[in-house]
Amino acid sequence: MNSNALSPIGVFDSGVGGLTVTREIMRQLPNEKIVYFGDTARVPYGSKSKDTIIKYSKQIARFLKTKNVKAIVIACNTASSFALEEVRQEVDVPVIGVVKPGAKVAVSKTKNKKIGVIATEATIRSGLYTDFIKEQDEQISVYGKACPLFVPLVEEGWTNDPVTVEVAKRYLEELKNDDIDTLVLGCTHYPLLRTMIGNLMGESVTLVNPAYETAVSLGEMLLKNDIAAGNENRYASEMYDFYVSDAAEKFKRFANSILPFKIEDISQISVENY
Amino acid sequence: MNSNALSPIGVFDSGVGGLTVTREIMRQLPNEKIVYFGDTARVPYGSKSKDTIIKYSKQIARFLKTKNVKAIVIACNTASSFALEEVRQEVDVPVIGVVKPGAKVAVSKTKNKKIGVIATEATIRSGLYTDFIKEQDEQISVYGKACPLFVPLVEEGWTNDPVTVEVAKRYLEELKNDDIDTLVLGCTHYPLLRTMIGNLMGESVTLVNPAYETAVSLGEMLLKNDIAAGNENRYASEMYDFYVSDAAEKFKRFANSILPFKIEDISQISVENY
Repeated sequence: MNSNALSPIGVFDSGVGGLTVTREIMRQLPNEKIVYFGDTARVPYGSKSKDTIIKYSKQIARFLKTKNVKAIVIACNTASSFALEEVRQEVDVPVIGVVKPGAKVAVSKTKNKKIGVIATEATIRSGLYTDFIKEQDEQISVYGKACPLFVPLVEEGWTNDPVTVEVAKRYLEELKNDDIDTLVLGCTHYPLLRTMIGNLMGESVTLVNPAYETAVSLGEMLLKNDIAAGNENRYASEMYDFYVSDAAEKFKRFANSILPFKIEDISQISVENY
Repeated sequence: MNSNALSPIGVFDSGVGGLTVTREIMRQLPNEKIVYFGDTARVPYGSKSKDTIIKYSKQIARFLKTKNVKAIVIACNTASSFALEEVRQEVDVPVIGVVKPGAKVAVSKTKNKKIGVIATEATIRSGLYTDFIKEQDEQISVYGKACPLFVPLVEEGWTNDPVTVEVAKRYLEELKNDDIDTLVLGCTHYPLLRTMIGNLMGESVTLVNPAYETAVSLGEMLLKNDIAAGNENRYASEMYDFYVSDAAEKFKRFANSILPFKIEDISQISVENY
């Protein structure tokens, strides 16, 4: 086992959405320590430009390196779409995003070779889901649809609400007409709308949550690089550390509604100094 | 006339919303040059903490000073609520916000002494509208309601949409029950929903748009300080300059749908360096 196998995994997102990925990593890889960073001061990323998303992602990667992370997971579709290579160049540890694992599982699920992707404006604009899917099977047609109101609706807590159903109907109508059989939830907030989206799309459409497959890919990558933690970490007093760039209390409330246990301490940092 | 009377007025907002104030300044004070800054990289401010809003506002004020502005208008209710004093301490020119002018006109309009205020979470949390209103007449009751989905709905372009009507109904229901006769549109995006909000509240409720009164206050302040421009500026080649922190093209599209003329050049700057 490599000497830094007991070091934590760095996970970051533009805000709280990446907690859906974190939850999956905790479940699948219970021996791993995690340092999470949510960029709550500068959320959302989905409406920002490529250059800005790269700049912010590199700052965060440099911050995570100060926490001695052994690997980084970009648990944000927008940052994964625009900044994966740039983050790789910035740090000397393995980096994985959520887009490639999500694309991979979508390709394995589709039968009629028609895949839909719902995501933020920026992720759709990047075309990266389409690229990764077509890299594996160029016969597949990919239908992307930006759903900019889903994130604010989730953050407002209206996950089971007639307004959200109406918005979702509007956004998903085209995709239903495109006869897709697989739909990627290409933003980490969207799994919180999973039941509603599933009901609207119907049983014939398989929903893909990249969080699950990302945690699988992370586990494989840790083994391949000989840096997977054994169960020594289970006796650590602090398995999980949370950092944000703003509004720690609000983050805590949201986190405690998503994670399987209660978190107490969240530290606020000035990420633009990294 | 003071020597810097021909200098521009600095106007800033978290994004595009402040253009509704800018439009009013252009209309009322056509001799004045304007330098506008929209913090499109870090929008929205309405969900952020006080400390972060102060930090961002001070950076912007320092940037505007490099443009030799003779006065600063904080054309954002959230920044006006939290950072007015701090911006005043940062610069040596007069600074006005939108909250005090908005509160003043609301007080002059109400007959039954019941005023509603709709705004972002942060503006409502600050309680500043209530403070300013009660400072003028402590008999007035103020009913604040945060409407966090209005900004994303406006930015999505759904200003005349059944979904937005439904969301507005939900947000405004309480205020209708409170029997208010005056409603302050306490966020610069909200005037774009003015007709819908007016229809929902009914004719007995007067809507107050602080933009108009802010431009009036600005005009008075310029005269009082002997820094109002004469019509010399009308012959300037560049009356209006626009700066943003991200996504200049998107800003331009929105600006051209709001302003009474077409703008061509918008510069992107790194505001965190100020």
